[in-house]
Amino acid sequence: MEQNIFQLQYAMDTFYFLICGALVMWMAAGFSMLEAGLVRAKNTTEILTKNVALYAIACMMYLFVGYDIMYGGGMFLSGIETVDPAKVLADFSTREDGFTGAAIYSAASDFFFQVVFVATAMSIVSGAVAERMKLWAFLAFAVVLTGVIYPMEGSWTWGGNAVFGLYTLSELGFSDFAGSGIVHMAGAAAALAGVILLGARKGKYGKNGQINAIPGSNLPMATLGTFILWMGWFGFNGGSVLKLGDIASSHSVAMVFLNTNASAAAGAVAALVLAKVLFKKADLTMVLNGALAGLVVITAEPSTPTPMQATLFGAIAGIVVVLSIIGLDKIKIDDPVGAISVHGVVGLLGLLLVPVTNSASSISGQLIGAATIFVWVFATSFVVWFVLKKIIGIRVSEDEEYEGCDQSDCGMEAYPEFTRG
Amino acid sequence: MEQNIFQLQYAMDTFYFLICGALVMWMAAGFSMLEAGLVRAKNTTEILTKNVALYAIACMMYLFVGYDIMYGGGMFLSGIETVDPAKVLADFSTREDGFTGAAIYSAASDFFFQVVFVATAMSIVSGAVAERMKLWAFLAFAVVLTGVIYPMEGSWTWGGNAVFGLYTLSELGFSDFAGSGIVHMAGAAAALAGVILLGARKGKYGKNGQINAIPGSNLPMATLGTFILWMGWFGFNGGSVLKLGDIASSHSVAMVFLNTNASAAAGAVAALVLAKVLFKKADLTMVLNGALAGLVVITAEPSTPTPMQATLFGAIAGIVVVLSIIGLDKIKIDDPVGAISVHGVVGLLGLLLVPVTNSASSISGQLIGAATIFVWVFATSFVVWFVLKKIIGIRVSEDEEYEGCDQSDCGMEAYPEFTRG
Amino acid sequence: MEQNIFQLQYAMDTFYFLICGALVMWMAAGFSMLEAGLVRAKNTTEILTKNVALYAIACMMYLFVGYDIMYGGGMFLSGIETVDPAKVLADFSTREDGFTGAAIYSAASDFFFQVVFVATAMSIVSGAVAERMKLWAFLAFAVVLTGVIYPMEGSWTWGGNAVFGLYTLSELGFSDFAGSGIVHMAGAAAALAGVILLGARKGKYGKNGQINAIPGSNLPMATLGTFILWMGWFGFNGGSVLKLGDIASSHSVAMVFLNTNASAAAGAVAALVLAKVLFKKADLTMVLNGALAGLVVITAEPSTPTPMQATLFGAIAGIVVVLSIIGLDKIKIDDPVGAISVHGVVGLLGLLLVPVTNSASSISGQLIGAATIFVWVFATSFVVWFVLKKIIGIRVSEDEEYEGCDQSDCGMEAYPEFTRG
Repeated sequence: MEQNIFQLQYAMDTFYFLICGALVMWMAAGFSMLEAGLVRAKNTTEILTKNVALYAIACMMYLFVGYDIMYGGGMFLSGIETVDPAKVLADFSTREDGFTGAAIYSAASDFFFQVVFVATAMSIVSGAVAERMKLWAFLAFAVVLTGVIYPMEGSWTWGGNAVFGLYTLSELGFSDFAGSGIVHMAGAAAALAGVILLGARKGKYGKNGQINAIPGSNLPMATLGTFILWMGWFGFNGGSVLKLGDIASSHSVAMVFLNTNASAAAGAVAALVLAKVLFKKADLTMVLNGALAGLVVITAEPSTPTPMQATLFGAIAGIVVVLSIIGLDKIKIDDPVGAISVHGVVGLLGLLLVPVTNSASSISGQLIGAATIFVWVFATSFVVWFVLKKIIGIRVSEDEEYEGCDQSDCGMEAYPEFTRG
Repeated sequence: MEQNIFQLQYAMDTFYFLICGALVMWMAAGFSMLEAGLVRAKNTTEILTKNVALYAIACMMYLFVGYDIMYGGGMFLSGIETVDPAKVLADFSTREDGFTGAAIYSAASDFFFQVVFVATAMSIVSGAVAERMKLWAFLAFAVVLTGVIYPMEGSWTWGGNAVFGLYTLSELGFSDFAGSGIVHMAGAAAALAGVILLGARKGKYGKNGQINAIPGSNLPMATLGTFILWMGWFGFNGGSVLKLGDIASSHSVAMVFLNTNASAAAGAVAALVLAKVLFKKADLTMVLNGALAGLVVITAEPSTPTPMQATLFGAIAGIVVVLSIIGLDKIKIDDPVGAISVHGVVGLLGLLLVPVTNSASSISGQLIGAATIFVWVFATSFVVWFVLKKIIGIRVSEDEEYEGCDQSDCGMEAYPEFTRG
Repeated sequence: MEQNIFQLQYAMDTFYFLICGALVMWMAAGFSMLEAGLVRAKNTTEILTKNVALYAIACMMYLFVGYDIMYGGGMFLSGIETVDPAKVLADFSTREDGFTGAAIYSAASDFFFQVVFVATAMSIVSGAVAERMKLWAFLAFAVVLTGVIYPMEGSWTWGGNAVFGLYTLSELGFSDFAGSGIVHMAGAAAALAGVILLGARKGKYGKNGQINAIPGSNLPMATLGTFILWMGWFGFNGGSVLKLGDIASSHSVAMVFLNTNASAAAGAVAALVLAKVLFKKADLTMVLNGALAGLVVITAEPSTPTPMQATLFGAIAGIVVVLSIIGLDKIKIDDPVGAISVHGVVGLLGLLLVPVTNSASSISGQLIGAATIFVWVFATSFVVWFVLKKIIGIRVSEDEEYEGCDQSDCGMEAYPEFTRG
């Protein structure tokens, strides 16, 4: 009879991973819609193609090599398809804390949950390099990031391996619950390297230092994308508790949902108010980025803050992201969707706020962890982008940029009947 | 070992609340897309901004004061972040009906489920006042509705408190399972008060009594919004069973899913047929409103009808909503998305149909409950809108209305490249 | 105490069905967005109306007669609303394999899961006949397909009945886990019959054999639809394990999620690469159809392949679907969204691949099953379409086709402010 209780717990924890994973997969649609809404019509088909393809590539590369690099277990997940219930039950029964200890669940559900995280990291890149990056250079980069760069830093953080055998982040007091740094700042670091090598879009920065707004072509799409990300984030953060099936764990999952939502809400409101003060207008794109900043900032530690602390952190993030977007434009880092600010700057902020509520982390540990992730991802990404630039080029031609990437890369318009002749 | 069974039940019921809550949160996206699709392009950015902001404000206000007003428990949910598993288990074991009694789950999951309901009520308002309401007046109203007006009536209904200490609705035979009245009619009452003070959009009603159609700008968006709401409603109604973890409860949840879907389907078909008869055309917006009417009508009691009764109720709702939309136009109540008909008129209908299948309710109880909710929400909303009108104004200027709220309130177009110059 | 374990298992399996069913319901939104994005603007309102209405009709017809035909249990699901927990527990306790045997769950949750499958089959049809099929002829067909044609073939396959009393498919080694053939190829067979009787859209095929591309009007919508379908498919395939609540079952559900995702990813990448080779462009619509092909092909058996096998099957499907779309155009089968290739050709491919990993099936069984489904659905559909053609006509007039079905059938444009005058 006790074995049946374990079976139910196993089933519950497996299902919890799968549902959370499906929500994270859904974030791929969120990034697609957000980015499609924030670029110009002439680059929309291409950004959609990039988003679908990068998700698919991430899933394949992580299956082929990434998961093995990050957590071990062998390539191609061979053998994962078989489970012996008797052996699983024996594992449960030999543990002192069988019921309240770490979850036992299907390894297949763990892979599914992990694989959608990789795609999230890569999704961050596509927005920042939008409207001028060659499609196939981007996809080649996606192969390397999702197959090697991300899994390596993942092995040092969630995987628990020593960084090049030198130091172990967890021992230094580094903690990143669901990946403000490991996923979001990592994606932003890869994007930043690409943006530096790419340069800004034609016409974004004028000769006399003026910054020209390039409005997004479809704000309902961008808003939908933000709501999708908001919803998917419950899976992203909620699944990162890694167990559902006892009182303490399920309560923790509930706190994560509550805090994730509270932080996003406060981020949206703070960005709305700050935009109104700065620009005299209720700038929708800033509100959306504020909500996303609230989501990113709480991702580093959504389980220990009180709801009011989560609200406060989200509000800070909403302010920081607006200032960061303004600031990056001043130094001519052209990021069409604000991804580097939302995921990079605020991702770092999230890491630095962890010690406020989680005593198991230290500010030095967070700084070392952040530096490790950033240096690794930025440096390797820079090398890969640089090699791609030399071999196949990473930027479309001036003509192609003027006509739009849709024609040159995809051969079809996103809205053939709508755009003004 | 019995304790482990309780732990699993606690985890299951907590997770059930969280998943249902995530689906209700998703309804915020549904309202956004529905309303963005049904307004003109020039008011789209503004309605999106309102929708994102109202959701965020609702989450913050309900955390700050609303939940405490409605259910008690102290402000800011302080203390909610800690749970003592031993104490929870003790609670279970001291109850006669520990396993089959009312669910014990994380209070954080309950808050998460409740908070998204508040946002739903407020989302109803934004559609009805669209295309002429000032953004900041709307947001100010959102603060009061989600912080005070809704929580007060919620305390009299789901909270179980006596209405101003005078009478207790549940004792009078009032029953509103998931909130046809408490959420939907309440939102519509607040909207109606606003619409009366606002007046109709310029050009909607001609001098000689003619009613001019103002077509929505993006029907795929509106359709998507309806599907999102349809999906989210499974969480809205399904979560309102308030327990999953035993046979009777989970069967009740299943009946709720089945009936909710059946009612929506019948509402869509009935509205389609009636529109064809009346207008000779398959009016898509009526089909969408028919489906939504089917969802609203069954919300007052989705657990006791047979599937055929749910189908019948939905069909009635689909007919009523079409007639109501036509009728409100005749008396010059200008509601761009039909929200007052869908949520108000049909919400009332839903309340009145409860006694047909639920013998614990009475028609007098339903009428008193409906009157209590309507009078309270309409009267307080009217006062708040009136005060806002006197202090900051609630209607944009004629020029702004002509140019569109997007320019005046948000400073950016939703579709800068698409609309005909 | 053992009874409480059974209660939890019952609740868990019921909830699992409901969540998977909600995801499949969500696929209705996916088909709507996909098809709305791939037709021209002038036919968008009409395709949306068809999609909402067909979902609603499918839900009603399956409730009225379909479920009874397919699985028995009586019309209108009368009696389904009551469950006796004591009887359910007795059922559990008298079984040898009570805990690890077939799931016991609420029949209401089973109906909910089954009903959304019917809608999926019908959704496939609407895309193939888009841009020239009369709305009401289509809806009349929907009544027959969802009420009779699909339930009959469903009774021979999942229902286990002998085909006209002659032979029993399962005994012949036919296996179709989640419906590559039973749902997808069936929908495509019905669509093919309609397309043959309808003929191609005006202007699709030129006099000298040239094939004219008719670009979709809104590719972000089409991409969103694909992501929605991808997400919903986790419920479609995952729920088809039919049980969650023990170790072996939940692991199987996890493998299904993993393989479904892997196959879709490989399908997208394979189609992308093949399109690049054939057309020199990264054809987004082919990428989307490649992903969908990956989803369809694995649907026949997502639980037994290894992840690498699922990847391989998906890649094959991605190649086949591109070739099939090209091939159908050569023989002038005009399918605006590629539904017959995605669901029909690849659905058959999926059936034929089952014996590679599932030894309980045989290639002869798969062929007989595929033939049975195809002949039945194609023949009966052809008769119904033919009768409709004779009585009310199935094709809009030339003028209506030129002006768009939106005006003639629905009386409203989908994007009244956007399309070029």
